[in-house]
Amino acid sequence: MPTKLNNIEEHNVTINEPLKLKSGKVLNSYNLTYETYGTLNIKKNNAVLVCHALSGNHHVAGYHKGDKKPGWWDNMIGPDKPIDTNKLFVVCMNNLGGCHGTTGPASIDNATKKEYGFNFPIVTVQDWVNSQKVLMEKLKIDKWNFIIGGSLGGMQAFQWTLDYPKLVDNAIVIAAAPKLTAQNIAFNEVARQAIMGDRDWCNGDYISKNKVPKRGLALARMLGHITYLSDKSMAKKFGRDLKQEKFNFNFDVEFQIESYLRYQGEKFVEGFDANTYLLMTKSLDYFDPITDYNNELATRLEGTLSKFLVISFTSDWRFPPSRSKELVKLLLDNEKDVSYGEINADGGHDAFLMENEHYFEIMRSFINEACNGI
Amino acid sequence: MPTKLNNIEEHNVTINEPLKLKSGKVLNSYNLTYETYGTLNIKKNNAVLVCHALSGNHHVAGYHKGDKKPGWWDNMIGPDKPIDTNKLFVVCMNNLGGCHGTTGPASIDNATKKEYGFNFPIVTVQDWVNSQKVLMEKLKIDKWNFIIGGSLGGMQAFQWTLDYPKLVDNAIVIAAAPKLTAQNIAFNEVARQAIMGDRDWCNGDYISKNKVPKRGLALARMLGHITYLSDKSMAKKFGRDLKQEKFNFNFDVEFQIESYLRYQGEKFVEGFDANTYLLMTKSLDYFDPITDYNNELATRLEGTLSKFLVISFTSDWRFPPSRSKELVKLLLDNEKDVSYGEINADGGHDAFLMENEHYFEIMRSFINEACNGI
Repeated sequence: MPTKLNNIEEHNVTINEPLKLKSGKVLNSYNLTYETYGTLNIKKNNAVLVCHALSGNHHVAGYHKGDKKPGWWDNMIGPDKPIDTNKLFVVCMNNLGGCHGTTGPASIDNATKKEYGFNFPIVTVQDWVNSQKVLMEKLKIDKWNFIIGGSLGGMQAFQWTLDYPKLVDNAIVIAAAPKLTAQNIAFNEVARQAIMGDRDWCNGDYISKNKVPKRGLALARMLGHITYLSDKSMAKKFGRDLKQEKFNFNFDVEFQIESYLRYQGEKFVEGFDANTYLLMTKSLDYFDPITDYNNELATRLEGTLSKFLVISFTSDWRFPPSRSKELVKLLLDNEKDVSYGEINADGGHDAFLMENEHYFEIMRSFINEACNGI
Repeated sequence: MPTKLNNIEEHNVTINEPLKLKSGKVLNSYNLTYETYGTLNIKKNNAVLVCHALSGNHHVAGYHKGDKKPGWWDNMIGPDKPIDTNKLFVVCMNNLGGCHGTTGPASIDNATKKEYGFNFPIVTVQDWVNSQKVLMEKLKIDKWNFIIGGSLGGMQAFQWTLDYPKLVDNAIVIAAAPKLTAQNIAFNEVARQAIMGDRDWCNGDYISKNKVPKRGLALARMLGHITYLSDKSMAKKFGRDLKQEKFNFNFDVEFQIESYLRYQGEKFVEGFDANTYLLMTKSLDYFDPITDYNNELATRLEGTLSKFLVISFTSDWRFPPSRSKELVKLLLDNEKDVSYGEINADGGHDAFLMENEHYFEIMRSFINEACNGI
């Protein structure tokens, strides 16, 4: 019997030192919610940080008491899995602005005793890295063996190597890009307009008005889903299959894909905060370290001790292989140690969450090398 | 000085013979609004039907009195243009269910003396072809020299060759597909949910309630625009350019692409009916003549006298070249006379509306051949 990560518990830490954000605003105190798996060894050289993407959270692996489904990357993280919790100490934190414990728009602002709502400051990838660094200190971790993430999570892993080059031995950047394209931003903008155009959004103040902008958030999620799947995987899974045998000639659900999207939308709004969604898309749009650091980039990369693994998936059209290659080229131009894997997979952007022999082999091989000597 | 098509007037014809729709419903009487350019010759062998796409209408070329901008395909149609109105008699009709004159959801239903609204029956590409046939008879046209359309318009051109094989000498099918994919349907479904989720849609009865579901329709249009442009053309046109020099750290417009999309959305809602948008997307979803005619397809294609020209654009990801090739293959398998042109263009799906030397040369060459002897 393979061992499972059972009875996983989330942890909280309240930080009372101010965090200055990139926008210039300051969070005076905030809560960080996180989970850990495995044990920090005496040498303290087995710590791993997992960064989550847009709709993710800190519950990355294992089961909470009574759970039927495990954390969102349970196929990757656990005993004997590519990120082996028998050997490694894995940390995943809900990001600032989130809605799963860490302070975000739905949290109470101590200054006003009301929910932040739309007043929650805009947070960036840099801000997340800084707050992850705060947690790192609380956990008495001196250095990450590696930092890993997919999509927006991969961007955080990359940002770490620029902002705290000496604290990251290895960075694994999966299905990400060095910055968003106009098309990426366009999709985010439509999602935001869907949320902000929902009358129940109430200018961001829906909680105090006892409303939920369900329609808008569901639309944003439906749209997101289209960009997470590939044309091919959608065709394989749904094609033009109908729910019933014949066309209805009305606007009820007819095609399986419609049913799937509506279900995904409805399910999502039960557990996610609309203002958090807005913040996450903005953080994606702003991410552009090459421009941010401009001439400084080379110096920063020079200071980086990290080895890099960059992974992309052939059918990912949100952040296609060409975008990962931009990152690889940048790293090579700066004479960094970088491995690159392009995985042949139909799953689209979501392929980074799916089991795949080639993908998992590359992960195991890179991580084994990283863990050499722990 | 090149001649311009000035003082173009639209025409209307009321049809009092019932039209049975594919859904089984019947339109007892309806209005058809159309424009014509050029003159039907004595031999009556120079008639051309142009079919419009989702958001198009009958005003395809030339200027109405006082207009600053010409019809939507003015670069293609006019004196000495590829569709040369010095030689050809060009007809374009607003489709049933439309919102530019032809009977549609915003028209008054004679039976109830109220707007049809959401009660307007679902119309299909076949229904449009049948109503175009009715107009053809009214105009005393015996045969089309060619029928042409891009996107949903191309689907109508193809459908004509199956439904009235003897009445179409040539069919030009541009940037189309033999049917929609799951991803295509998914985008349509999100657009519909955006409209139907707008509280001002009022279950489709917004006109009588003096409302307009502007937010929902604008969202649908914004989303549409993303799929009309290519990633590359968006990157070229907007990149990550900002409206102002710096990030705002708020949710106002920041990137040029956001500004462009919001403007496109706002402009669109001034001249387009939301229920029409719903109908058009449904017509796209339903289009699938290969399944509709099943075993009959070969027989129908056998009866087709038409020569075909199929055109696709390399950067079109809504209906990419592979989808046009499916159509070409189908026609070749049935031993039809088909020419195929794949145009190297950055413009995405919208490339079919743009001037392009290679594209226009192919058009001229095919049309010259078609017009041989008129």
